[in-house]
Amino acid sequence: MRHFEDFKVGASHQLGSRVMSKAAIVAFAQQFDRLPFHVDEEAAARTQFKGLIASGLHTLSVAASIVVDEFLGDAAMAGGAGMNNVRWTKPVRPGDEISVHLTISKAEPHPKQPHLGVVGMALKVVTLQGSVVMTGDVDYLFTKRPPHG
Amino acid sequence: MRHFEDFKVGASHQLGSRVMSKAAIVAFAQQFDRLPFHVDEEAAARTQFKGLIASGLHTLSVAASIVVDEFLGDAAMAGGAGMNNVRWTKPVRPGDEISVHLTISKAEPHPKQPHLGVVGMALKVVTLQGSVVMTGDVDYLFTKRPPHG
Repeated sequence: MRHFEDFKVGASHQLGSRVMSKAAIVAFAQQFDRLPFHVDEEAAARTQFKGLIASGLHTLSVAASIVVDEFLGDAAMAGGAGMNNVRWTKPVRPGDEISVHLTISKAEPHPKQPHLGVVGMALKVVTLQGSVVMTGDVDYLFTKRPPHG
Repeated sequence: MRHFEDFKVGASHQLGSRVMSKAAIVAFAQQFDRLPFHVDEEAAARTQFKGLIASGLHTLSVAASIVVDEFLGDAAMAGGAGMNNVRWTKPVRPGDEISVHLTISKAEPHPKQPHLGVVGMALKVVTLQGSVVMTGDVDYLFTKRPPHG
């Protein structure tokens, strides 16, 4: 099991990909982001996007699920702390396959809780064609390695 | 229809609330945040949270849905641009009812696209009991009012 001490600033990881299907894009948006260009193909065609695009929150959630499934499964995670500098740089469209490139940007003791550390991860979400569709910095909390562990 | 020019810095709005059900918390996390304290009640009981808590992305998505449904329905929205300073300050548990308090923090012309403006909204997500569970700043794009419109 990896603990706070096992995350090294500068380490970089190319994680796997997920296809953003039309059904998933519409289902997410119907629950959380009911704007015409996310939920209604015909209305979306009449907007500046000229077709359906994924909610930015959907892209963010899929990217986070890739990180959790492929990078945090064996780690002593104690939850998410926050996010900064999230930018949706290009629309994600039905059928786009997105992958996550992750770089450890920060690893600091928690300012108040001595058994925890904060690990910052810079995420870059990229399509198969190489377009960067989202960037952002996520801070996760991890427990420190137990003494004599 | 409200355009960029209709958003005034300092204006503040108390929006409605949503109950975070156990079923919704688990369903969201099974899709996007498969950590033990989000998806498995028994495993969650053995963590530092001593029970199920909502994924921070779920809280964020529900908060955004309140903003979209109650505040942006009649606005000339051109999409989300980014987020900053997102902090999950307290766990959200099954049955918690969360509401959104929104303050317009910024209203600036878009640096590159002359027909658009950027409106910053500071969100505070609060339970019925008054606990602040999330804060964050979201930037949305709006079209400017057409000349002679």
